[in-house]
Amino acid sequence: MTAHVYADLPFVRYEGPDSHNPLAFRWYDAQRVVLGKTLAEHLRPAVCYWHTFCWGGQDPFALGDPLFQRPWFQGAPLAAAQLKLDNAFDFFTRLGLPFWCFHDRDVAPEGATLRESNALLDAVLERAARKMQDSGIQLLWGTANLFSHPRYMSGAATNPDPAVYAHAAAQVKHALEWTHRLGGANYVLWGGREGYETLLNTDLKRELDQYGRFLAAVVAHKHKIGFTGTILIEPKPQEPTKHQYDYDTATVYGFLKRYGLENEVKVNLEVNHATLAGHSFEHEVATAAALGLLGSIDANRGDEQLGWDTDQFPHNHVQLVPAMLEIIRAGGLGQGGMNFDAKVRRQSLDPIDQLEGHIGGLDTLARAFLCAAELYESGALEQPRAERYAGWQGELGLAIEAGASLDALAERVHAQGVAPQPRSGRQERLENLLNRFV
Amino acid sequence: MTAHVYADLPFVRYEGPDSHNPLAFRWYDAQRVVLGKTLAEHLRPAVCYWHTFCWGGQDPFALGDPLFQRPWFQGAPLAAAQLKLDNAFDFFTRLGLPFWCFHDRDVAPEGATLRESNALLDAVLERAARKMQDSGIQLLWGTANLFSHPRYMSGAATNPDPAVYAHAAAQVKHALEWTHRLGGANYVLWGGREGYETLLNTDLKRELDQYGRFLAAVVAHKHKIGFTGTILIEPKPQEPTKHQYDYDTATVYGFLKRYGLENEVKVNLEVNHATLAGHSFEHEVATAAALGLLGSIDANRGDEQLGWDTDQFPHNHVQLVPAMLEIIRAGGLGQGGMNFDAKVRRQSLDPIDQLEGHIGGLDTLARAFLCAAELYESGALEQPRAERYAGWQGELGLAIEAGASLDALAERVHAQGVAPQPRSGRQERLENLLNRFV
Amino acid sequence: MTAHVYADLPFVRYEGPDSHNPLAFRWYDAQRVVLGKTLAEHLRPAVCYWHTFCWGGQDPFALGDPLFQRPWFQGAPLAAAQLKLDNAFDFFTRLGLPFWCFHDRDVAPEGATLRESNALLDAVLERAARKMQDSGIQLLWGTANLFSHPRYMSGAATNPDPAVYAHAAAQVKHALEWTHRLGGANYVLWGGREGYETLLNTDLKRELDQYGRFLAAVVAHKHKIGFTGTILIEPKPQEPTKHQYDYDTATVYGFLKRYGLENEVKVNLEVNHATLAGHSFEHEVATAAALGLLGSIDANRGDEQLGWDTDQFPHNHVQLVPAMLEIIRAGGLGQGGMNFDAKVRRQSLDPIDQLEGHIGGLDTLARAFLCAAELYESGALEQPRAERYAGWQGELGLAIEAGASLDALAERVHAQGVAPQPRSGRQERLENLLNRFV
Amino acid sequence: MTAHVYADLPFVRYEGPDSHNPLAFRWYDAQRVVLGKTLAEHLRPAVCYWHTFCWGGQDPFALGDPLFQRPWFQGAPLAAAQLKLDNAFDFFTRLGLPFWCFHDRDVAPEGATLRESNALLDAVLERAARKMQDSGIQLLWGTANLFSHPRYMSGAATNPDPAVYAHAAAQVKHALEWTHRLGGANYVLWGGREGYETLLNTDLKRELDQYGRFLAAVVAHKHKIGFTGTILIEPKPQEPTKHQYDYDTATVYGFLKRYGLENEVKVNLEVNHATLAGHSFEHEVATAAALGLLGSIDANRGDEQLGWDTDQFPHNHVQLVPAMLEIIRAGGLGQGGMNFDAKVRRQSLDPIDQLEGHIGGLDTLARAFLCAAELYESGALEQPRAERYAGWQGELGLAIEAGASLDALAERVHAQGVAPQPRSGRQERLENLLNRFV
Repeated sequence: MTAHVYADLPFVRYEGPDSHNPLAFRWYDAQRVVLGKTLAEHLRPAVCYWHTFCWGGQDPFALGDPLFQRPWFQGAPLAAAQLKLDNAFDFFTRLGLPFWCFHDRDVAPEGATLRESNALLDAVLERAARKMQDSGIQLLWGTANLFSHPRYMSGAATNPDPAVYAHAAAQVKHALEWTHRLGGANYVLWGGREGYETLLNTDLKRELDQYGRFLAAVVAHKHKIGFTGTILIEPKPQEPTKHQYDYDTATVYGFLKRYGLENEVKVNLEVNHATLAGHSFEHEVATAAALGLLGSIDANRGDEQLGWDTDQFPHNHVQLVPAMLEIIRAGGLGQGGMNFDAKVRRQSLDPIDQLEGHIGGLDTLARAFLCAAELYESGALEQPRAERYAGWQGELGLAIEAGASLDALAERVHAQGVAPQPRSGRQERLENLLNRFV
Repeated sequence: MTAHVYADLPFVRYEGPDSHNPLAFRWYDAQRVVLGKTLAEHLRPAVCYWHTFCWGGQDPFALGDPLFQRPWFQGAPLAAAQLKLDNAFDFFTRLGLPFWCFHDRDVAPEGATLRESNALLDAVLERAARKMQDSGIQLLWGTANLFSHPRYMSGAATNPDPAVYAHAAAQVKHALEWTHRLGGANYVLWGGREGYETLLNTDLKRELDQYGRFLAAVVAHKHKIGFTGTILIEPKPQEPTKHQYDYDTATVYGFLKRYGLENEVKVNLEVNHATLAGHSFEHEVATAAALGLLGSIDANRGDEQLGWDTDQFPHNHVQLVPAMLEIIRAGGLGQGGMNFDAKVRRQSLDPIDQLEGHIGGLDTLARAFLCAAELYESGALEQPRAERYAGWQGELGLAIEAGASLDALAERVHAQGVAPQPRSGRQERLENLLNRFV
Repeated sequence: MTAHVYADLPFVRYEGPDSHNPLAFRWYDAQRVVLGKTLAEHLRPAVCYWHTFCWGGQDPFALGDPLFQRPWFQGAPLAAAQLKLDNAFDFFTRLGLPFWCFHDRDVAPEGATLRESNALLDAVLERAARKMQDSGIQLLWGTANLFSHPRYMSGAATNPDPAVYAHAAAQVKHALEWTHRLGGANYVLWGGREGYETLLNTDLKRELDQYGRFLAAVVAHKHKIGFTGTILIEPKPQEPTKHQYDYDTATVYGFLKRYGLENEVKVNLEVNHATLAGHSFEHEVATAAALGLLGSIDANRGDEQLGWDTDQFPHNHVQLVPAMLEIIRAGGLGQGGMNFDAKVRRQSLDPIDQLEGHIGGLDTLARAFLCAAELYESGALEQPRAERYAGWQGELGLAIEAGASLDALAERVHAQGVAPQPRSGRQERLENLLNRFV
Repeated sequence: MTAHVYADLPFVRYEGPDSHNPLAFRWYDAQRVVLGKTLAEHLRPAVCYWHTFCWGGQDPFALGDPLFQRPWFQGAPLAAAQLKLDNAFDFFTRLGLPFWCFHDRDVAPEGATLRESNALLDAVLERAARKMQDSGIQLLWGTANLFSHPRYMSGAATNPDPAVYAHAAAQVKHALEWTHRLGGANYVLWGGREGYETLLNTDLKRELDQYGRFLAAVVAHKHKIGFTGTILIEPKPQEPTKHQYDYDTATVYGFLKRYGLENEVKVNLEVNHATLAGHSFEHEVATAAALGLLGSIDANRGDEQLGWDTDQFPHNHVQLVPAMLEIIRAGGLGQGGMNFDAKVRRQSLDPIDQLEGHIGGLDTLARAFLCAAELYESGALEQPRAERYAGWQGELGLAIEAGASLDALAERVHAQGVAPQPRSGRQERLENLLNRFV
């Protein structure tokens, strides 16, 4: 087995929609300017470390040995981690994406103590810093894995044991500081084990309070060290726990309001998490935008027939146009970006499959964004939507917005014989219209 | 067809678990005292008007004529409404429940103008007031139907047309004032059309703001008229709209916080709405209790294999014990109660089927409550739960609660070698233990 | 209200992808030849009577009065039915589709007896026959409504009461004979109430036997009258009943085999029924093709977040390409076609909304078919698929196909040290490749 | 870590419903006679090897190291397997169940070649044979794991590579022969990888044919070696593949009919597989019984809010009564039994949790069976069900069963004015009635 598994793969270039080259971009023209910025600046795409370099193709249900053969799946842990890092940056470079993302325990192995774990992380991230310098690849976000180790089985911040809380706090401190040092644009908290398996042994209110306190401490530390990136929470409804506290954007909003953190924390929205929560992805984006929480995107897709997080690469650009439109309406992602929290299917054993997965995924995002941008600029949807609400600029609308009471409104209804007539919402026309742009 | 369809049915009595009488209660012994109150005081059960007296057994999907033959489904609207009311109170009395609930348009027909509609409602509710007086039956809650009439097809408070908002405000004013006059314990808002069908024509943020403004006006009016009942919002995730703004309890909490109403409004939780939102019912109860929003219950059940609101009578008491336990842990429902938002299956054509549906449903609630009360009093679950979190009374736990920073906790972890060990959550033992009480 | 609500709408023409005319086809170029036939011959698209002319925009859950105002929703039943028919053919003509479909009770009202109902149907279908003659519009299929009337609440063929079975048989006889007389290409049976609400009162085996007997009688009658169209069963998993016997294609196949009808009956596959059954639509198509049952299509789409049959017009052509590819691989639909079992959203009140819904739906079908045809002709997917199974042409493959026993195969494995290696399925490459054609 | 982790646990005894001993049975009184047989003879309960002794508490989604510490998770593979076996029989004995079940690769490790794997299996199963002899514990079924090893990633019988088919055949031969030798009552095939991930690279028809051929070879081998146990297929809709060919009972029936195997093979029904397929468990049982396929049960439960196979121990006896009733109506399970394909939650780390999980599960099964038996014997449900279909004994019913044509039935309807009236299905009464027995 060669030590550098991507060494024979080409550097991926944009060749345009007519290209038949499976290892070229057909839509992701990084430097193409649209709506005043390049595509790369709009999308800020990133490769995630976990799915691409750590997952071995195991069946989540039957477990068993890894299917994928990668040289860093064996050997001394630290050396393997360094080899993995070298391969990762090789992959990033060949793919040509501007960002990467990491979990601490994906980058470096766990040691016997936290001190040892920190030292292992330091060793690998020092090397990563040099590689970032050399390659120009930037960090979209870092995060700490607070869910895989047995100590976190009953939660990290929400664990019944305060020692686990303390351990998690110390681990986040280190990961956050490294994210800061590597110039990360964001820091993510995914509460993988922040939830419950059964209410029979759970004090929900206490656990929520613990979680609020933990998040406040993370925010305080961010300010203390001068980190200017955004703190992001990643909503997910269930899996791995039966019920996760960060269920969806609306739940996270209420949580942040409860603990006074709504101006400090935003959301990292994952497509497949939205659909598992019973929402369309565009719903989650629109909700986050309306509530001022739109942070970043974990780009992937689920399978409509499966009830778990399949983390597939996006491949249907038509389906993504409404969400891209909501992002554009919201003014874009700011410091956020689009991380491919996506993995090839387990039968896609070969390194080249990973490259093709990312190429197809990024082309899908780019194409969807280009369609949405053109649709937005045309005003074809914006105008009828504005007209639909035009009544609120009228005298009655303004009176209501000024706080008209039930009494005042009832008097008006009776006096003026207010008898509103329904007006077509023209959904089919708008859907057809969207299809003019895809 | 006889005018009084329940006239031949008996007055339902409690006969105990060994009774073979299908028209007797086997578990609902209204005057039995447990946890310091009677069962009737704990459950505060109510019959809903809509499902029991207005629904004609239509197939929701194939529509068509009513299956059920009731004399009040025909004839002059006001006379029919009065006949329906007489039958309803006859049913309440035979069933022996302490409460009823109503929607304005179920009780009385819609007129040509709101003034006419109000007058029709007045006529029927004057009669209802006398019947309540005579029978001693009380009002658990009233509400306005802001979803069936074509004018509300695109929402009431969240309609793109402010005239609809005004009409809804005037309608709620009248329903709320009648609820007050009838001594209603609560007033409910179910946002049946407060949601959207497509984001392509929807301004989510604007609609949420409209909704917040509307709710604030309702709360202001409540205080103005001196109504001391609780204002309740009823969460539901979708149906009839694609996405309803009152998705679930956590969403409603964030909404109330956003508009400063979290101390003014509580939730009316429906079992089947919880399950459609992807939650267990006990989750919704526990969440509402943790967030201070637990108001009232719409008691029914869904069908685990069906994706819509089937509104069936509860019949599995074991499944309800965890939710009843959460209600007991929260100190009960206060002014709330348990309204049967449940209907017989459409093949259950006969008036006697309705009586049996309510008997079985109430027996299920009563049995579940009795089991939960005994379980709670035994301490069998409460004690291990308290022990599970006992660490938070220790020095580390208290330091964290006092606001320990990431730095302080990291120092402690390194200095003391904090290395927490996972401890069994004993879920199977707790589940078996619960089964000792059912 | 004008009697002819579509009279002001234009005759829809194909104007090509660049057209901005919302009332023109952009992809459905009926006479365009691809894979040896015109698009119209491949798709054989049809308008369904029910959703388009009979549904009044009622909320399935809140019921209430119709939202849509159509002149045929009032007045004397037979005259209204004739007016509806006139409007329907006006709509067909303006839209320019080659086929229509009907349920007997949508076309004409129910009479006091079956004889009367038959006479009413005769009156309307005589008129329809003339309109078909005049317009050249053909009948894709006819069917009998065996689910809306109260008599069918517990099933038609599977009813516990044999009188209902007899009534259903008589009703089907008349509808089938009319379908024959109108030159229908197929006759459909949708078992809307052939299922159960609860097993507690159901004899599953008996009901399946009744259903098999009924279907055999229908097939016998078809042959007796010389009808050469195809008898189609329409799978659906649930709704309106809790569990429908025609759950999905695989279930229907087993049912047909059990009663020896697998060579007599095919399936009419509906997109949204497939997704409600937990299958992708392309799965149902591929399964029907593999089992020799592919008959016809009810073209629509569901909403991925909703658990009921939303019957929306298709609008994402990318999503439909895999199913179109399976249809092409299977050699097309033969006598079947693509009926729009789709309806506008209820807020789409106006007649023009219906036209736009059909235009967008048909453009989506046409575009998906054109993409799939090009993909198929390119061989880009067909070739790697053939290669993936190439081993079965080898010696071992042929030996297995010739019936090698476990003993023989075990001996070979041990003797030859058979140790197969996994080979990438290249899913991402194939998905990207498909995207080159959309 | 002690080598014998269950050594301190007691031998579990039946102590009756009033026992407070968490390590005693409260309902499973093995020797209690009901409906003519002992409870043990009715239920034939079994412990499964996989979940109880092989699964390490890994999170299916976050993977990572095992949570559970068991001495056989380390050390030399064969010795570890023998230690695992010793512990397993110790567990069986303490629990007191009459049966066990195994997968070949759970019992013994995989070797470098199939010959080696066979030898390893021989070594462990020789020991198992002695332990069975000593303990009196019998084998409910054996099976081969054709899904975990990388070679099976694209299926076993349905693999595109015939060498994999051959390997699977050889592996099944050995497992089937050992099952025969150990006196197994059944042999199970679970097609864990018999399905597809994407239709883009799949020839569905070919794969079904391969699968049919494989199953025929297994049946032939069974007869050749004189095995008199039942061959069972275990339906599952998806997971691990996107779509499994053995989707549900109805699908398996069609498959068996297609390949002429419906009299040779039955189904092993798993509760959680039924619910994942969109069916109630009682539906699957009733369907299997109606189609003559009822074989054996994998007893567990799913979580109604989760979309994957959670394999929890049953704990709600009320929910299981309808399925138990269907089993009783069908005359019982014959050679089948009830295998606990269930695992403790991953936070339940300790060996005692496993014992309590099994105790609670078995008590739930026993209680449900006892309730169903009493209900059945009472005739309380059987009688109204028979009456509901009584019309089929009448003249019209018999004429239909004798094959009345549509013409004959239509003539009768018109001549006799057949106008059937709907009759209440009394669902609520029957549900209440069931509750009298729980």
